[in-house]
Parts: sequence; structure tokens; C-alpha cells
Amino acid sequence: MKTEKYLVKEGQRVTLSDYSTERDIELNREDVENKLMPENIRHMANLQEKLYAENTSSLLIVFQAMDAAGKDSAIKHVMKGFNPQGVHVASFKVPSSEENDHDYLWRIHRQIPRRGEIGIFNRSHYEDVLVSKVHNLISTSQLPPELKTDDIFNVRYRQICDYERYLFENGTVIVKFFLHLSKDEQRERLLERIENPDKNWKFSASDIHERQYWDMYMQAYETMLENTSTQFAPWYILPADSKWYTRYLISEILLEKLTEMDPQFPEFPEEKRGEMEKCRELLLKEISKD
Amino acid sequence: MKTEKYLVKEGQRVTLSDYSTERDIELNREDVENKLMPENIRHMANLQEKLYAENTSSLLIVFQAMDAAGKDSAIKHVMKGFNPQGVHVASFKVPSSEENDHDYLWRIHRQIPRRGEIGIFNRSHYEDVLVSKVHNLISTSQLPPELKTDDIFNVRYRQICDYERYLFENGTVIVKFFLHLSKDEQRERLLERIENPDKNWKFSASDIHERQYWDMYMQAYETMLENTSTQFAPWYILPADSKWYTRYLISEILLEKLTEMDPQFPEFPEEKRGEMEKCRELLLKEISKD
Repeated sequence: MKTEKYLVKEGQRVTLSDYSTERDIELNREDVENKLMPENIRHMANLQEKLYAENTSSLLIVFQAMDAAGKDSAIKHVMKGFNPQGVHVASFKVPSSEENDHDYLWRIHRQIPRRGEIGIFNRSHYEDVLVSKVHNLISTSQLPPELKTDDIFNVRYRQICDYERYLFENGTVIVKFFLHLSKDEQRERLLERIENPDKNWKFSASDIHERQYWDMYMQAYETMLENTSTQFAPWYILPADSKWYTRYLISEILLEKLTEMDPQFPEFPEEKRGEMEKCRELLLKEISKD
Repeated sequence: MKTEKYLVKEGQRVTLSDYSTERDIELNREDVENKLMPENIRHMANLQEKLYAENTSSLLIVFQAMDAAGKDSAIKHVMKGFNPQGVHVASFKVPSSEENDHDYLWRIHRQIPRRGEIGIFNRSHYEDVLVSKVHNLISTSQLPPELKTDDIFNVRYRQICDYERYLFENGTVIVKFFLHLSKDEQRERLLERIENPDKNWKFSASDIHERQYWDMYMQAYETMLENTSTQFAPWYILPADSKWYTRYLISEILLEKLTEMDPQFPEFPEEKRGEMEKCRELLLKEISKD
């Protein structure tokens, strides 16, 4: 499958209204759910085991989107085949007082996956160029006043690109997903959270409040996508109005990435083979004694 | 006092043998210890209190040097006037297995001082371009093989400069000290650790082992100093054969930095003045009731 059409190339201009929020490839839902997805999940799980055994690289998956775009459900349905021992999910909410007392990447860096792990960011450092921009949170932040310049978001784009390149150069492969939801579909999903008692627990009045800023968010996303999609850490804009389709795209792209990474079980060191043979003999002797 | 002669300017070539390890300014030791140092410490403590109250910027002080160059004693004698509530000292030793499972700045970032704090690094991320280079630790590290390039230390210099600029742009002022010790003076101090029972606890055979690599270390220091002294995070090369003199230089430079930072007690917000007045009245009423 061609996933490249969803990739934002380095330096590319982005107009979100040009991107479909709906499924744009002909696919049969049953095929996807009963055959294609389970196959992808099985392949990914095999590759994850090798990544974990190899213990040199890690894969970081970043999710950003408007509320109700399906981040949680994608994490649940796409990642369920992974061995949780090698997976680390971090959700970034409103920063704590300790987090605000540090630079904005401080809390992010603490959650970077270990070698061999797959890390999943449910929201991320990108909140600091999205919600911070839409709600002008810089003005009330604890930053020294002389650092609160008009240019601050351009500075942050550069800082984030430097940071992600650094991670890449130290063994963390990064892939970033923007789940592109239509405003109409968001309304439907938020209504569902109100009207379906089993989904009430997901309801938050703040989601409805944030919805008012839709256009400003889209602008902030556009500029962010244009400035932070790099060969080291590319963004993918995925249509998100159809959840099963979004999940399938995610699994396709992750499978591609893991295949490219090509993790291998480590070879047993030749010089230790003698030692291993001795251990074998000891174990076998136990049988002859019995 | 002119401290600029010890500053490594951005892009400057460094030949350590051209730098004195001995005191090179005429100063009376008694004057320094009984008058100049106590004054500096008092001034710094005043500025620290404001930095802490202001709660926007932080100061990070990095110490790198050969063994026995006086890092610990400098921290002890220069920083003793600070309120420990606002000071955070981090010592970086051989990385743990959890630390090795991450990029080399991971453990560093966790220890970056909070806003309002003074952070002190006893050794630092610079170990990853010093001991790693001298002992070729890259070859046995957990990095993915394709990232173990011949160019890796140049890449790291760039990464470190980017990282320190990022910290600066987010409110952390950085000053870095290389304590420049002569090989003869190191021998004397290591002998003292062996011969003086009260200093035996500081003795480590590995220090004597590392001493064999002196020239390689000096080369690694030179390249590192040339490539990582920036306007955001400058290096100072301080003569270290005379401890009292080194400490005095450190206090002079730190006092300069803190004075430049010019921290201020925050002004009480006008709109809350009414509330504060009410609290005053409540407290005063308690007296009239008694």
C-alpha cells in the first residue's frame, strides 16, 4: 500500500483543507478487520520481539490530534499485539508545577523509550506549539520575560527539530501521526459521549470549549506540520473520520518503519560458545544421575 | 578583576600547554581567604535569594577536570554560602544500565535545575566526549552499529551546543569550568591521598590508571573546549594548581554571572493588594481580642 501520500515532506507547505478527512482508498472494511489488520499486527509483533532482543534502537510513535480524533482507540487497537514489556505509553496532560519549573522538553525526555522499546506519546511536546499558541500560554508562563519574544514558536520549531534529530542520531526512530478529523465528525463523536451512558466517562466540558478554537488550531497545526516534518522525524497526516481506516493506515506505516529498521536477534558471541556447551553438559548430567 | 582572560571565546583554538596551571595574578592569600572570598560569598548568597524568589531563570555550573583537580573542594568552599534549598548538585559517575539504555543526554536532562535553582554538575555530559573518546567506549556501547561513525564526536559537539542553546533559550544560564591541573600537581595530590590516613577514603586505584592516559585526555579536552564554548554556554579554563586561587576565580566568575542575570524579588501584584490588606486587618483584630 502507498502510504507516501500521507507523508509531509521536509519543507512542504500544508493546507489542511486540501487533505481529506475521509477514507480515500477503496478498501473493504471486513477484509481489513478480519484479514489485513490481524496480519499486520502479527508481523509487527514479530519485529517487536527482535527489536527488544537486539536492544540498540527504539521506536517512538507520536500522536497529535483534536479531541475525539481517535488517539486512544488507535493505541488500543493497533498496539494490542505488542508485548507490553517492551512498550511504554506516555500521556501528556496539563503540565504539573514541577514540570512548569523546567524547560518544556524536560518532561518529554524523561519518557523517551529505552533501547529495544516502542514508545507511544499520546500528545507530546507539540502541545507547546499548539495549545500554547492558540491560548497564548507563553504570556502567563514562568519563562523569563526577555525570552517571551514574538518569534518564540519559530524558535521552538527549530529546537524541536534539533531535539528529534539528536534522538534519531542516538538510536531512536521517530514517526509522528496527525489524525485529521473533520469538525462535523467531532461533533458526532462528542454527542455520542454525552448520549451513550457507556461513553459518559470520556466526556469533558473542556472539549466543547476547545472546539470553539477549531480554526485557530487548524492554523497552528498547519504551521507546525510545515516546520517540523523532517527526514529524521516525519509527520503523517491521516484521515480520521473513519476509525477502522485510520487504524489500518497506522499499522501499515508502523510495519513499514519496523521493516526498514530490520531488527535482528543478536548473535551469540563465539567466544562464549564453550561456556554455553559446558552448561549444556551440566544440565545433561543431571538427567543421567536421576 | 579581569576574568575574561580565562574565557574560551566561541571558535577559539585551544592549546592547553599555553595555559598556566599556576596562579598568574598577584594576590595575597590571606586577603583572599579572609576578605575577598567571604565578600563574594555574601554577595552571591544575596543574589541567590532573589533568583529563588523570582523563580524564572536558573543557573547551571558545570565542572570538568582530571582527578584531584579540586572539583569537590571548589563545590564545598565556593557554594557553602548558598541556601541549600535552592541548590541542586548532580554527580555523574559511570552510567547505570538504565542510563546506558537511553541517549547520553537523558540522565543529564533529568538533573537540569528548576527555575530559581542553582544547579551544579560534578562531571557532566562532557564525559561522553572525553572518557568515551580516550577509551573508545563507543565501540562497546549499545548504540546501533550504523551510528558508530568516525565522525561521532564532531556530531556530539554539535548536539551538545544545540542542547545548551536550547537550555539557554528556556531560561537556564550556563557556565562551564575546566580546572586545569598540572600532571606534577596531580601526582602530589594523589600521593597525599595515599599517605594521609584522613584522605585514604578519596583514594581509588583507577585514578592512577587514568593518569597513564594524561596526554590523550589533554587532547580530548582541547578539541572539546574548542568546539563547545559558545556565547550561550562558555567555558573557562582556570589554573588549578593552587586551590585557594581556583576557588577565588570561580567565585569571581559566578558573582559576575549572577550580577548579569540581575534577579529581582517579584513585585506583589497590585490587584491582590486589597486581599493582602484584609488579611492584615484579620491578624490585627486577633490582637485587639486578646
